[in-house]
Amino acid sequence: MDSLATRLSRTAVWTGAGVELRDVEIPALTDGDLLVRVRLATICGSDLHTVTGRRSAACPSVLGHEAVGVVEAVGGETAAVSVGDRIVWSVTVACGRCERCRAGRTAKCATVRKVGHEPFEGDWALSGSYAEYIVLPAGTAVVRVPDTIPDAVAAPAACATATVMATLEAAGPLLRRRVLVCGAGMLGVTAAAACAEAGARVRITDLHPGRVDLAHRFGGVGDAGGTVDVVLDFSGSSDAIAQGLGRLDIGGVLVLAGSVAPGPALTVDPETVVRRHLTITGVHNYEPKHLQQAVDFLERTGAVFPWADVVSSPVELDELHYVLAAPPTGMLRSSVTP
Amino acid sequence: MDSLATRLSRTAVWTGAGVELRDVEIPALTDGDLLVRVRLATICGSDLHTVTGRRSAACPSVLGHEAVGVVEAVGGETAAVSVGDRIVWSVTVACGRCERCRAGRTAKCATVRKVGHEPFEGDWALSGSYAEYIVLPAGTAVVRVPDTIPDAVAAPAACATATVMATLEAAGPLLRRRVLVCGAGMLGVTAAAACAEAGARVRITDLHPGRVDLAHRFGGVGDAGGTVDVVLDFSGSSDAIAQGLGRLDIGGVLVLAGSVAPGPALTVDPETVVRRHLTITGVHNYEPKHLQQAVDFLERTGAVFPWADVVSSPVELDELHYVLAAPPTGMLRSSVTP
Repeated sequence: MDSLATRLSRTAVWTGAGVELRDVEIPALTDGDLLVRVRLATICGSDLHTVTGRRSAACPSVLGHEAVGVVEAVGGETAAVSVGDRIVWSVTVACGRCERCRAGRTAKCATVRKVGHEPFEGDWALSGSYAEYIVLPAGTAVVRVPDTIPDAVAAPAACATATVMATLEAAGPLLRRRVLVCGAGMLGVTAAAACAEAGARVRITDLHPGRVDLAHRFGGVGDAGGTVDVVLDFSGSSDAIAQGLGRLDIGGVLVLAGSVAPGPALTVDPETVVRRHLTITGVHNYEPKHLQQAVDFLERTGAVFPWADVVSSPVELDELHYVLAAPPTGMLRSSVTP
Repeated sequence: MDSLATRLSRTAVWTGAGVELRDVEIPALTDGDLLVRVRLATICGSDLHTVTGRRSAACPSVLGHEAVGVVEAVGGETAAVSVGDRIVWSVTVACGRCERCRAGRTAKCATVRKVGHEPFEGDWALSGSYAEYIVLPAGTAVVRVPDTIPDAVAAPAACATATVMATLEAAGPLLRRRVLVCGAGMLGVTAAAACAEAGARVRITDLHPGRVDLAHRFGGVGDAGGTVDVVLDFSGSSDAIAQGLGRLDIGGVLVLAGSVAPGPALTVDPETVVRRHLTITGVHNYEPKHLQQAVDFLERTGAVFPWADVVSSPVELDELHYVLAAPPTGMLRSSVTP
């Protein structure tokens, strides 16, 4: 550990105006910390929202919460991972002790901290994945990545894929269910694939026809209207949500996962909810088990769905600000290698 | 069976203007039918809504769907019950073969018929419990009633208690949960008792303070405001529902069971549903397992809660119209014995 104390990590710091590359000192690790060398980070849409001002975020901060890396050092004793392990890590860091954690809802830990969301000038400077190194405090779930999963396929596990796993759990049984997926971005396309794998009949919608075409390669077909059993919303569009709710059959479930910014209210008729046994439920972030499910899912479906085709070739860290400002079109994720 | 073919059943027929007593011929039973002699029927609030014009219903019809009776004759062979068994029966009669029945949602059977809701002039004249006899077609769930449960306690099982069992299932785990019950009628008071038995901390609200006082004897306490984990609405009041939704803690569940008439829409903020992991779900009627759970619950809690105290002494069938027009105050259920 001593040899690391004077080492520096090349780090992209979001300043509000742009991204500045800085050499940040790697701190001494405390018990339970992991030091991870980032191999590749994918760029989640929420980071694009941050840099365009559509999402408020700590600033300055180190963004990036979808990544894969290798354990470089371990603070104290841990059986969970070893130096050299290739891993993905959760967005949320939980205390494990509060009432919510004890209730199995660690994503909403009373003192939750989040990878890629924390102030650079606090006590956790290396908190984001757009950097050579990241420090993962105790309470960050990590999952080892099988060799068969390329970096660009593994990285989205930590946000898009794991959130989709949580969304599917909220949706309930999917075999033979008619599922409408709203939004054909990374989450929607992943959800289409996961629902198709679970035996559902999946339709997918998006304002961009090209994205729906892409989703065809992930088990979804275009939407022809009509009644459905499950609506999974990743669009956050009030119109899409209202239309989806109106199309639910008896016993139908609407899972909201895309509404992470203020928007118009949804109008719900209580009598319809009662007489038609409808359910409306929300998902935000995920639990450690969903990260494991995400990695398992990507391993299992590596030969079934063209995961690598939707992530653009990585840029270097010093090109990150260009990609954040103008992500390449036709891809669902850009990526960066520090 | 031949001896029954010429027998008559004294039957209260709802004509739209009032209740007329008629002697209705008991039909020959077909395979799977049960002929049941009604011992006691309790008067559900929805029948009061029908006679006051607040609920549209088949007319003329035989009302009454909360009752207990004795099997008088069985059409064909059945292992389920025997002549002489004291039973309660479900509100819904399901085909058992349609897609919804096969999905375990028999209450929403594509060809569902309902005890106490069918046209008198159709092919099922003796379809309601405000009568000497009722015919239960194949597909009507029935549950034997233990001797320890008095008639007046058993009768509500078939609507109030079983619906509460379905509502609790929709609410999820209740141990140590903070539950707000809206509406302290028969369903709300029963829900308070069931939640208390399951280890929840139960608060209950009603516009009538006297009803809340009554609920104290069933495990509920008055509501002092604050955050809750579960809201069970039996009031159908848009205000109560909106307030309940606003008080849900992270991961909270709002179960709507009282909204069975048109009312104002509920305004829901999708971002709040997502970030706070909220669930809104509806319950209407119940499945056969809930009727069994209802009888088990009433048997189990017979010495714990004063069930018999909330049902008024029965009137005769020819006094039914008075009770429907002006149910006694201070009780949760009136009752009638044919």
